Amino acid sequence: MYFKPDDTHNPDLKSWVESANDPASDFPIQNLPLCIFRATHGEGDERHSHPHPGVAIGDQILDIGLLLEAGWFDREAPDDLIDAVDLFDWVGIAESPRLVHDLRVVLQRFLAAGSGGGQQVRRLRDKALRPIAETTFLPPLPIANYTDFYASVHHATTVGSMFRPDNPLLPNYKHVPIGYHGRASSIVISGTPITRPKGQQSPPDNDPSAGPTFGPCRLLDYELEVGAYIARGNELGDPVPIALAHDHLLGLCLVNDWSARDMQKWEYQPLGPFLAKNFATSISPFIVTMDALRPFRRSAMERPSGDPKPLPYLSDPDDQSHGGFDITLEAFLLTEQMEAKGLPPHRLSKGSFKDMYWTFAQMLTHHASNGCNLQPGDLIASGTVSGPTPESRGCLLELTWDGTNSDGKPKPRKPIQLPTGETRTFLADGDTVIFKGACEREGWRKVGFGECRGKIVPTSL
Amino acid sequence: MYFKPDDTHNPDLKSWVESANDPASDFPIQNLPLCIFRATHGEGDERHSHPHPGVAIGDQILDIGLLLEAGWFDREAPDDLIDAVDLFDWVGIAESPRLVHDLRVVLQRFLAAGSGGGQQVRRLRDKALRPIAETTFLPPLPIANYTDFYASVHHATTVGSMFRPDNPLLPNYKHVPIGYHGRASSIVISGTPITRPKGQQSPPDNDPSAGPTFGPCRLLDYELEVGAYIARGNELGDPVPIALAHDHLLGLCLVNDWSARDMQKWEYQPLGPFLAKNFATSISPFIVTMDALRPFRRSAMERPSGDPKPLPYLSDPDDQSHGGFDITLEAFLLTEQMEAKGLPPHRLSKGSFKDMYWTFAQMLTHHASNGCNLQPGDLIASGTVSGPTPESRGCLLELTWDGTNSDGKPKPRKPIQLPTGETRTFLADGDTVIFKGACEREGWRKVGFGECRGKIVPTSL
Repeated sequence: MYFKPDDTHNPDLKSWVESANDPASDFPIQNLPLCIFRATHGEGDERHSHPHPGVAIGDQILDIGLLLEAGWFDREAPDDLIDAVDLFDWVGIAESPRLVHDLRVVLQRFLAAGSGGGQQVRRLRDKALRPIAETTFLPPLPIANYTDFYASVHHATTVGSMFRPDNPLLPNYKHVPIGYHGRASSIVISGTPITRPKGQQSPPDNDPSAGPTFGPCRLLDYELEVGAYIARGNELGDPVPIALAHDHLLGLCLVNDWSARDMQKWEYQPLGPFLAKNFATSISPFIVTMDALRPFRRSAMERPSGDPKPLPYLSDPDDQSHGGFDITLEAFLLTEQMEAKGLPPHRLSKGSFKDMYWTFAQMLTHHASNGCNLQPGDLIASGTVSGPTPESRGCLLELTWDGTNSDGKPKPRKPIQLPTGETRTFLADGDTVIFKGACEREGWRKVGFGECRGKIVPTSL
Repeated sequence: MYFKPDDTHNPDLKSWVESANDPASDFPIQNLPLCIFRATHGEGDERHSHPHPGVAIGDQILDIGLLLEAGWFDREAPDDLIDAVDLFDWVGIAESPRLVHDLRVVLQRFLAAGSGGGQQVRRLRDKALRPIAETTFLPPLPIANYTDFYASVHHATTVGSMFRPDNPLLPNYKHVPIGYHGRASSIVISGTPITRPKGQQSPPDNDPSAGPTFGPCRLLDYELEVGAYIARGNELGDPVPIALAHDHLLGLCLVNDWSARDMQKWEYQPLGPFLAKNFATSISPFIVTMDALRPFRRSAMERPSGDPKPLPYLSDPDDQSHGGFDITLEAFLLTEQMEAKGLPPHRLSKGSFKDMYWTFAQMLTHHASNGCNLQPGDLIASGTVSGPTPESRGCLLELTWDGTNSDGKPKPRKPIQLPTGETRTFLADGDTVIFKGACEREGWRKVGFGECRGKIVPTSL
């Protein structure tokens, strides 16, 4: 069952930015995801070296600050929105769902096809757009706290079967939205090169007395995740009832939780992953707002019969009926050989966020259930998004897993075959990992997430 | 072997603040720990409702801002120190060990007994001091990232023996300084009431099919830890060689890593502690600077013969010889009955930080060894400080543990007997936990940490 969206998602609305009307575009006038950008090919104007607030429209970025300077908001928007835009204050905007909506309305009016306007407006249209291809991005919010969940039961089961073939899923999984704190300081924007980390690796299985070694990670992996930005915070000691959880979210993005599997295996007991994860986490540049995502909200994954019901604090009829999001997620790999030959990225997986066991509403409410204070701008990631089929697995650890032999020992990993004849079980230096995400639904315009990409560079540590 | 301190620690130096000359004082003129304070009994002066930078001296806080206003720094200090003090910029000061030293020198000159001065100086002396007892404190730095380690082998072994009697210490422990990311947003200053968290608890052992319950934590505990503030950060991808690690530290404080043991047991696999810890972490108000601690640096804990040597990136002759700190640490409990009867807090434990298996230099270097970027103001905590003896155990989980029967099942916990006849295995509502820490060494003035305290209030969630 899908959520019933309101009129601002009218699929017939078109923009004078022609590229936005292409049905394949991630960024139609119904989307307008928020970003902070820096123009790379400025005209020497000092403005272009400073970060700016913008939204994506077609293949362009709209500079919101220029609309503000031109007085466009004065005619259209309430004072508190003007103040917030003036301060580049996404958080301020986010804390009020009304302001997010108001912002989208102002921008839609400016961007709508047939909206007319004199010479001044035409000049503003030229000036306020910049090609995405000539733009670099910054994290759209200052991320103070970063939490990573583990909300795909398929991921948890497959990974669990590698370590505990008899008992792949731990007894807490279907009751507790498992999560842990990640490192906020090493979150980087899409496009930032990812240096292969160094770290400790366990002694060889056949010689435990040898002791661990320290060197470049040999089993470097990605994890395809979705992130949710916190809009409205809660005070310390003040939980968030699940019925209100969605009002605390600003919007979603793509997240690559880069993982050093050999380091992770050695270090993670008993306190969880640490250096295997905190060397870098990539985020896509855009916040796709909850407002833009309304048509794609749907029922959460149906729990198999026999599974426990969520405890009351995690149960809400509203959440069950449209706490999920139908987001198609794809991971691609582009090796340097493929780049040199002009080949397109090779798709590794395709899955959907609707297959997650826990919803963002449940994750958020659980996070705050002990009184933990979430803050505007915090990022909550979903954990690897893996579906029930082998093609929908969101990391190489799962994709190249080939199960165990009858003696319980793992079979050799099954490498991925690439169009160049190259193979991969884990990532090589020079590999670029690209995530894409989009919401599509009959009768509605596509709402896309853009890309989250990162290229592995050799260790220099 | 102790570190050889320089002249600024001259034990004969006395202050005109008489209380600072009491040998029992935590805050002699040789200490001068940094804080941000707010006066609670102001004279209606607006200044007193705003946060101020200060240092503790005897039973008083010295308002550094007033010295700055009075031009005291102009005569004594370099411009960059003046700018930093003017901005309340501890981080700026911290990033240069020279500035920390310069600040201490200026303040020592102002505070030294027999330093004379006219009527103006005498008036400034009166005005710039405020009793600690009339002062409230704020976190001394904005803590962006918080990491908690597990550096006591005694703690790890005792806790491990509860869960794995045959194999208490995991194979990675003596190679990896185990750590995990904590929650920065819920760090609170000493004195902040601690609300008993609610959370999921595991099904009863004798009926796993019953499912978990959600309710107030029943096994609430403290953990006595030492925290280290990062002064100088490192760029992403840029490790910190162990020989330079101490230059990246500003100073130390006391940390109470409040822990909900029942929630922890149920949630912590496979990604580590989460809601069992992130409802609150208390810190003492003062940063005891690395400069003030120099006389108390000493060799790290001697590893038992047969233990592996640290890997080369964690080995430094300098670190081995004086990477440890000789800090006596005590935990006290004050129940409401004891308060009502006017009884003093009851000491639960006494241990020393010198018994830690890993030094802060090793923790910091390990943390950055994969390129993770530490930032000025980050807090790194040591994990529970427990020593080799039962009296030196830094949490109730260990203190009330009574081992296992011959069948491998745990014996009933052994409650702590209090002077009122009350007993405790874990914390009750109304209990106040107080930590104290101090460095003492023959021939040198005591350098103390002050208190870290928190009172448990009933859940209101």
